[in-house]
Amino acid sequence: MAVQTAAPTPAAPPAVDLGPAAGLSCRECGERFPLGPVFACEHCFGPLEVAYDLPDCGPEELRRRIEAGPASIWRYAPLLPVPADVADRPNLHPGWTRLVKADNLARELGVTGGLYVKDDSGNPTHSFKDRVVAQALEAARAFGFTTLSCSSTGNLAGAVGAAAARAGLRSCVFIPHDLEQGKVVMAAVYGGDLVGIEGTYDDVNRFCSELIGDPLGEGWGFVNVNLRPYYAEGSKTLAYEICEQLGWRLPDQLVVPVASGSQLTKIDKGLRELIALGLVEDGPYRIFGAQAQGCSPVSAAFKAGHDVVRPQRPDTIAKSLAIGNPADGPYVLDIARRTGGAVEDVDDERIVDAIRLLARTEGVFAETAGGVTVGVTRKLIEDGLLDPSLTTVVLNTGDGLKTLDAVAPTARPTATIRPSLDAFRDAGLAH
Amino acid sequence: MAVQTAAPTPAAPPAVDLGPAAGLSCRECGERFPLGPVFACEHCFGPLEVAYDLPDCGPEELRRRIEAGPASIWRYAPLLPVPADVADRPNLHPGWTRLVKADNLARELGVTGGLYVKDDSGNPTHSFKDRVVAQALEAARAFGFTTLSCSSTGNLAGAVGAAAARAGLRSCVFIPHDLEQGKVVMAAVYGGDLVGIEGTYDDVNRFCSELIGDPLGEGWGFVNVNLRPYYAEGSKTLAYEICEQLGWRLPDQLVVPVASGSQLTKIDKGLRELIALGLVEDGPYRIFGAQAQGCSPVSAAFKAGHDVVRPQRPDTIAKSLAIGNPADGPYVLDIARRTGGAVEDVDDERIVDAIRLLARTEGVFAETAGGVTVGVTRKLIEDGLLDPSLTTVVLNTGDGLKTLDAVAPTARPTATIRPSLDAFRDAGLAH
Repeated sequence: MAVQTAAPTPAAPPAVDLGPAAGLSCRECGERFPLGPVFACEHCFGPLEVAYDLPDCGPEELRRRIEAGPASIWRYAPLLPVPADVADRPNLHPGWTRLVKADNLARELGVTGGLYVKDDSGNPTHSFKDRVVAQALEAARAFGFTTLSCSSTGNLAGAVGAAAARAGLRSCVFIPHDLEQGKVVMAAVYGGDLVGIEGTYDDVNRFCSELIGDPLGEGWGFVNVNLRPYYAEGSKTLAYEICEQLGWRLPDQLVVPVASGSQLTKIDKGLRELIALGLVEDGPYRIFGAQAQGCSPVSAAFKAGHDVVRPQRPDTIAKSLAIGNPADGPYVLDIARRTGGAVEDVDDERIVDAIRLLARTEGVFAETAGGVTVGVTRKLIEDGLLDPSLTTVVLNTGDGLKTLDAVAPTARPTATIRPSLDAFRDAGLAH
Repeated sequence: MAVQTAAPTPAAPPAVDLGPAAGLSCRECGERFPLGPVFACEHCFGPLEVAYDLPDCGPEELRRRIEAGPASIWRYAPLLPVPADVADRPNLHPGWTRLVKADNLARELGVTGGLYVKDDSGNPTHSFKDRVVAQALEAARAFGFTTLSCSSTGNLAGAVGAAAARAGLRSCVFIPHDLEQGKVVMAAVYGGDLVGIEGTYDDVNRFCSELIGDPLGEGWGFVNVNLRPYYAEGSKTLAYEICEQLGWRLPDQLVVPVASGSQLTKIDKGLRELIALGLVEDGPYRIFGAQAQGCSPVSAAFKAGHDVVRPQRPDTIAKSLAIGNPADGPYVLDIARRTGGAVEDVDDERIVDAIRLLARTEGVFAETAGGVTVGVTRKLIEDGLLDPSLTTVVLNTGDGLKTLDAVAPTARPTATIRPSLDAFRDAGLAH
């Protein structure tokens, strides 16, 4: 159990260089621990977060350094748990994805204050998971792990397989045995071990927890379990990039998908860091959480005024958000309430409509999670909860090519004709 | 026929602002024509190319301007047929994709001089087609077209649909009626008209040529027909990016896929422009063309020592390269011979092996065209035609998610087990 909770170890901890990361601290009780492959506080079992010695060179110099950095998340290396030379190491170097000024979508939704889509489908394996895995990979190296692992239903499997291949580490990814073929192919193509587990995703997760506690799992870094504190920090880079791309300015409103809730929590952390460092002017911002109706435990809790989240059994096309018992749910509720945001959900039909709306207005083909954020944005405006006169950023965290089935029934040819001008004229297609 | 060949028009040409583009010139006879939606010389029917008034500010100032530009192809706007404010216009803003230093792949292939993969799967619709469509879109706007169109079997359809949606233009894309569902979905999701043609890709092409000559096609910009001179220039940006990412230096060797041959031809043009402008030091470079054995008309001509290309009927899994009668084939032969390169082909089995090799060494999941370039690189080294002691750049022009079928039979789980440590141990998966 030594890897699951943080305890002072009799032996001296290995010397690790994770740049400005100075230790781990418990989000609940504040207790500090040395850097290590641990994720839960041994005193209160609260989640551990990375604590930093952040640069004190002043905001102007820091901004200059960042802007001179690479076109990837590593421009923010001084704010992340990675070695200073990370950009020169074998890593997928994700990030610095497009912030699309979505004027056509803004007109459709009635947003007048400026609407942007942060499009993370441009990452190397086409989802935001490359951001978090890139951090976990550096932590795995620092702790001497030789195998990178995870439980996954899709995006994470591909991100871990690709990152391990590039880094020359072994990988072993666990998936439910009955996943869609496309996701299996993408997880398997990078050549690591891919293990189908006869059971549900919950069974896969339970098995991975067993494996971590067993000698069989010795030397294994599970990106979303024993490396979770480092992994999770990757989501901060979404906040950094959005603010820098807006000209070092906070957006007024952000709409963020909620699965485990970690991403939303870390985006809030990233924004607060930018303010504390003086990189952006302090000011109010509202964070909105977006869920699918078929898996909306956080949204349900928000609407009921609860502080805790009651688990649900997922049933939605937005499978990458289908976590029925989200670990960071209470933090999401707290952030939404503290910032004046909300948590909302939309049904599968509105998710599909929103995918198509984003595609036809901005040429961005989002995975179902992107349909959730755009659909929720529309609903929040209808309900008067999101102010259309304020600058708003909506996240698309994945790629439509990975969830083709969601739109396949409606995305079809306008017509099928013989190759003749008469047939073309008869079909009424002349513009 | 006025749109198909260039003739002096009685009416004054519309005032078009395409930045440094000063006119069109015939690649064969050198005749100059004003900018317009024309693609063939009226005197000799040779292909027309964009001619420029290139900046004369000197290489240092030009390099400075480019480096201060956006993280997209528009950093090279001073060298492209686009207005100076192009980065502020609604466009997908593709490019500035990763140049991956492929040390693991280099070890496998025995390359000691530095091996790089230019990974264009990071573009907005995940293929290099976004580069060329982005140019065609600006030309379409300049000439007052209201509909963007093309014939396509896949990548181009998605790129045109997405670009038109973003730009607020109508789109009408023509495809063979029996395309794979995935490609149809991606082409349809952007909401333009998608027309299935009962026939082969050749039938689709013939139909489009008819449509351009008919009043029904009035106001239509076919990106790869009447906008082809502008469209084709987009491929130059691959050369620009590679050299800038190498630190403003020519690579010694490039391996480029050959479909119509336009991309290879324009990469050569881009390299020569960089030399002429003093942005890189003059020196030798070798360009190698890569084809699939099942559609290798240019490779066959190269090996036979011919100057002309005999058409073939394509039969290969590399469908995005399956052009049996490549328009720019003779130019490819000329460039390969002039630079000391070669044109080579590999069979489907080696294409699949190469996709898997690139994935497991570098975490890059390429489409079949990427398997062709990596496979050909390996073959060229085996045959002593490509020098492994020189800096080599291999292009991956598309995304593995679009050609899943190629690797699906071999990219499968290592094992399927019950969720227990015993089952895991018995499967021999412990590392």
